[in-house]
Amino acid sequence: MMADLLIRNARPFGGPPVDLFIRDGRFVAVTEARSAIEVDAAGQIALPGLVEAHTHLDKTLVGMDWFENRVGPSRSDRILADRKAKRELGIDARRQSARQIMQTLPYGVLNIRSHVDVDTEIGLANIEGVLQTREALRDLVDVQVVAFPQSGMLQRHGTLELMEAALRAGADIVGGIDPASIERDPVRHLDVIFALADRHGKPVDIHLHEPGDLGAFCLELILERVRALSLQGRVMVSHGYCLGMVDPARQHALIEALAAERIAVMTVGSPSAPALPLRLMRESGLVVASGSDGIQGTWEPWGNGDMLERAKFLAQRNGMTNDADLAETARICSFGGAEGIGLDDYGTAEGCFGDLVLVPARTLAEAVAQTPQKRTVIRRGRVLVRNGEPTGDLPAIE
Amino acid sequence: MMADLLIRNARPFGGPPVDLFIRDGRFVAVTEARSAIEVDAAGQIALPGLVEAHTHLDKTLVGMDWFENRVGPSRSDRILADRKAKRELGIDARRQSARQIMQTLPYGVLNIRSHVDVDTEIGLANIEGVLQTREALRDLVDVQVVAFPQSGMLQRHGTLELMEAALRAGADIVGGIDPASIERDPVRHLDVIFALADRHGKPVDIHLHEPGDLGAFCLELILERVRALSLQGRVMVSHGYCLGMVDPARQHALIEALAAERIAVMTVGSPSAPALPLRLMRESGLVVASGSDGIQGTWEPWGNGDMLERAKFLAQRNGMTNDADLAETARICSFGGAEGIGLDDYGTAEGCFGDLVLVPARTLAEAVAQTPQKRTVIRRGRVLVRNGEPTGDLPAIE
Ligand SMILES: [Zn+2]
Ligand SMILES: [Zn+2]
Repeated sequence: MMADLLIRNARPFGGPPVDLFIRDGRFVAVTEARSAIEVDAAGQIALPGLVEAHTHLDKTLVGMDWFENRVGPSRSDRILADRKAKRELGIDARRQSARQIMQTLPYGVLNIRSHVDVDTEIGLANIEGVLQTREALRDLVDVQVVAFPQSGMLQRHGTLELMEAALRAGADIVGGIDPASIERDPVRHLDVIFALADRHGKPVDIHLHEPGDLGAFCLELILERVRALSLQGRVMVSHGYCLGMVDPARQHALIEALAAERIAVMTVGSPSAPALPLRLMRESGLVVASGSDGIQGTWEPWGNGDMLERAKFLAQRNGMTNDADLAETARICSFGGAEGIGLDDYGTAEGCFGDLVLVPARTLAEAVAQTPQKRTVIRRGRVLVRNGEPTGDLPAIE
Repeated sequence: MMADLLIRNARPFGGPPVDLFIRDGRFVAVTEARSAIEVDAAGQIALPGLVEAHTHLDKTLVGMDWFENRVGPSRSDRILADRKAKRELGIDARRQSARQIMQTLPYGVLNIRSHVDVDTEIGLANIEGVLQTREALRDLVDVQVVAFPQSGMLQRHGTLELMEAALRAGADIVGGIDPASIERDPVRHLDVIFALADRHGKPVDIHLHEPGDLGAFCLELILERVRALSLQGRVMVSHGYCLGMVDPARQHALIEALAAERIAVMTVGSPSAPALPLRLMRESGLVVASGSDGIQGTWEPWGNGDMLERAKFLAQRNGMTNDADLAETARICSFGGAEGIGLDDYGTAEGCFGDLVLVPARTLAEAVAQTPQKRTVIRRGRVLVRNGEPTGDLPAIE
């Protein structure tokens, strides 16, 4: 039986200070507050747990030897190097996923969607490793597992069967990857992954880096399949660079269509990739989520997984400096992510899960701009991290 | 008389471990080492002091009340808001510049070029404030002061006289600003600032945001004046977005011409501004420096002034993930900056000033990618910061 928790003087999403009460792991009316453990938030900014809507838990090198990156710049160079590294470095997906989760917990990242590689070399090893970590750390964080055919599916026989097996083993979501530039057959790739999703009753999440009009064409194919299979609210497009590349008329039309079918878009705000039109997307009611993508892996040597810093990067990529805009990017990294990956009972309203991150900042904009580190992290009414320091009873990981 | 300092087992620029010896504030041959204070670098990466080649010390709001940014997105909106804020917030340039310098010292920022506003509302107050701070903190950091006509010079009578007065008061460099889009008369603006520089024997540093072909035209005007006045090696162009916007043939020609006249280019790698072609610029022998621009001001709420993190941002903006590319961006934030702002005796070779920042990382690329915080900072053989902690005898500032 979990103790009740009373949080005094917290400012949800930067609003006026309130007291919040968590009983049995959920927010209830503070008028019901009775004897409980108390946390004095001292006017700190309160956000529901930050949402990491797109990462690769199985491929981080956190805590391992330095990987000297000599990889060429193209995506296929990187996929090759990535597969080679998995083979040669012996990346243990169970251990590495636990390391990343424990690294991002003090930031307040309490919900994670991770793509996890499935290919004919590693088989289901990464899926199984991340599923083990999910189970081991289930009291700290919720993890969604996307079966992700990083090396392609159509060209590598056996991958489809492995994807099936991954879903049976416990993967939650069907992943897809550039249906034209990598899979070389957009219709067949999309037909295969949507059929998988339909057969298993699972959502879909597609890495779509395809540029310009090619990407727009792929989005149209995705839209057709969402309509045909009634998958509204169950599909996410990750990256979707083409939305930042096509002409304004087509851009508007695509965004309206995606919003109408409730297809979410995940963007990391990469400084070197096309910027997505965040303002227009917001105005159209499109669900926008964000993520860190890989952190400290063979693709990129940086990244810490802080989704509040990610909100800052989104603002910076879009040239936004206004307090109101920073609040919007904070929303993308919390409520937007929650809606995008389909979380239930997310938020600080009564009945929602009792998850909270307290950030020592004077305003929500300052929290985004300065990303203060000494946060307090609460999950289901249990204090996991206090002022940046993990509380005593977190599990030890390797 | 300063004590000698022996630094054992440091890896200059990520190379093999060596011992370094500083006597009387300069590196000398380690064979001359005699009894001295010792620092065990334990294999850490050693860089000469990081170089901040472009900031605005007089306008940071560090340590002040939160400024709610409601400013519109255009540059003229921002200049207006900036002038209003200076008036209404009472930004004390002396105090604020000291705060920023003390904030960036633990990162190892030991050389700073700061643009400092000169206009008909504040007069020389900001110049005088920053000059006072420079004097007060001269044992910690070297500061160059650019007299900067932020609000324009041609349109605001009296500004030119104030620029003259700023140079007489101790400003080191003549600043300029968008000669077309702000000054509305590129030839006259450039003639005026180059005449000032010529008359006072000072270098020039021009904020040039002008886009595309307009920017390229302004660069051509600058090149003509550098040739006419023999100012090779004395002029920096800050931002120079047009270099990332014009067609490849013109881009090449401009970069070759800038390199030939030894005009340096300063880029901050902003995620929302055009990316400059760093690889091409390096290959052409162009001197490239970098800076933080404003930190935590009315223009932008973020920024910490860490020039090692800036090296990471430069790499990210340019899609560089290779270890070799990260070493190059580290070079921009150290040696490139030193050459760009004209520092003498910079580096770890014998005879150079005994300045060093030790970064706890396994490789130079890791130092850039992860920007470890517990650095040791040495200036002229004196340890100012040890493992991230300021040593006892730093001056207290408000
Ligand atoms: Zn990804
Ligand atoms: Zn500037």
